[in-house]
Amino acid sequence: MRELEERIRQEGIVREGNVLKVDSFLNHQCDVDLYNRMGAEWARRFKGVPVDKILTIEASGIGIACATAPHFNNVPVVFARKSQSINLDGEQYVAKVHSYTHGNDNTVIVAKRFLKPGENVLLIDDFLANGCALDGLIEICKQAKATVVGIGVAIEKGFQPGGKRLREAGYDVESLAIVKSMDVATGNIEFEAQSN
Amino acid sequence: MRELEERIRQEGIVREGNVLKVDSFLNHQCDVDLYNRMGAEWARRFKGVPVDKILTIEASGIGIACATAPHFNNVPVVFARKSQSINLDGEQYVAKVHSYTHGNDNTVIVAKRFLKPGENVLLIDDFLANGCALDGLIEICKQAKATVVGIGVAIEKGFQPGGKRLREAGYDVESLAIVKSMDVATGNIEFEAQSN
Repeated sequence: MRELEERIRQEGIVREGNVLKVDSFLNHQCDVDLYNRMGAEWARRFKGVPVDKILTIEASGIGIACATAPHFNNVPVVFARKSQSINLDGEQYVAKVHSYTHGNDNTVIVAKRFLKPGENVLLIDDFLANGCALDGLIEICKQAKATVVGIGVAIEKGFQPGGKRLREAGYDVESLAIVKSMDVATGNIEFEAQSN
Repeated sequence: MRELEERIRQEGIVREGNVLKVDSFLNHQCDVDLYNRMGAEWARRFKGVPVDKILTIEASGIGIACATAPHFNNVPVVFARKSQSINLDGEQYVAKVHSYTHGNDNTVIVAKRFLKPGENVLLIDDFLANGCALDGLIEICKQAKATVVGIGVAIEKGFQPGGKRLREAGYDVESLAIVKSMDVATGNIEFEAQSN
């Protein structure tokens, strides 16, 4: 998505440790008009795919998912909650998610009431690098016997292994911008060409 | 807002300790179509008020704020991040927020780049009970020398002191549903009459 690539080029800040800061429009300050066009773009790419529900993860995914849902007939958005201590009352799906960024494990939780067997679920998240957060959401969908029909990602770091692994596992991953390389010294960011 | 009151009556679950669970449509599963109409209602109530930015707090406020921004000319949404440990690099506004629900203190953080002196800020949140989260956002606006022009709340617990205190302090608090009382034994929920 050219607009997103341009925006990343203009405002993205490259930091040591494969960090790309895009907090001026994507995940601290939010450009909701851009979110809306991202939602429209996913709707174009996933045209014809049945979607009953959008599943994302707090916090940065929520705004993007909520701006995307109107492009999918206002299906409900469910956001998985992160927690380090949980109250296991049997009414929740729970998966463990490792964070390379913070070097710790988080638990992600979805109430069983909000994810049902047979539901067609579109996963949405802001970033895809190693894919750990999406693995957690996929694991929760498996527990619920729901079907992951697609994965919409705003920014994929193409030089990290998550996207390749998920596509090889058969998932339809649609990343709106795929960073091929980024240079912490010059701040230069290169994107992979996208056919669609 | 009658639609929101009806929805709370139908799906809200009253629990011990003044807890009102509305996670089927407001803060775990999200009805984005309802969010959109809530945004339109705040736009009606705050008509004529200058709004440069919407400020909310993760996680539950984000989706509501992002659905509200299109009704305020797509102004940017900034969400304060919660953290228990922070990296004080001088580039962030920081305020302490006490949580009665969890019995602990959180730190809320906004990058200084995203809140400027003189900006007119509309605060949005899902719940107002004791008002601690909103106090934190107000404190951050004070540090930034930004002006809080209004506070939009989805559900106010009118039997807890936050709303009264904030209104007495001069803030224009627009709560879309104000719970007068709720009964954990019967599940009955009463609302305060609203003139507008």
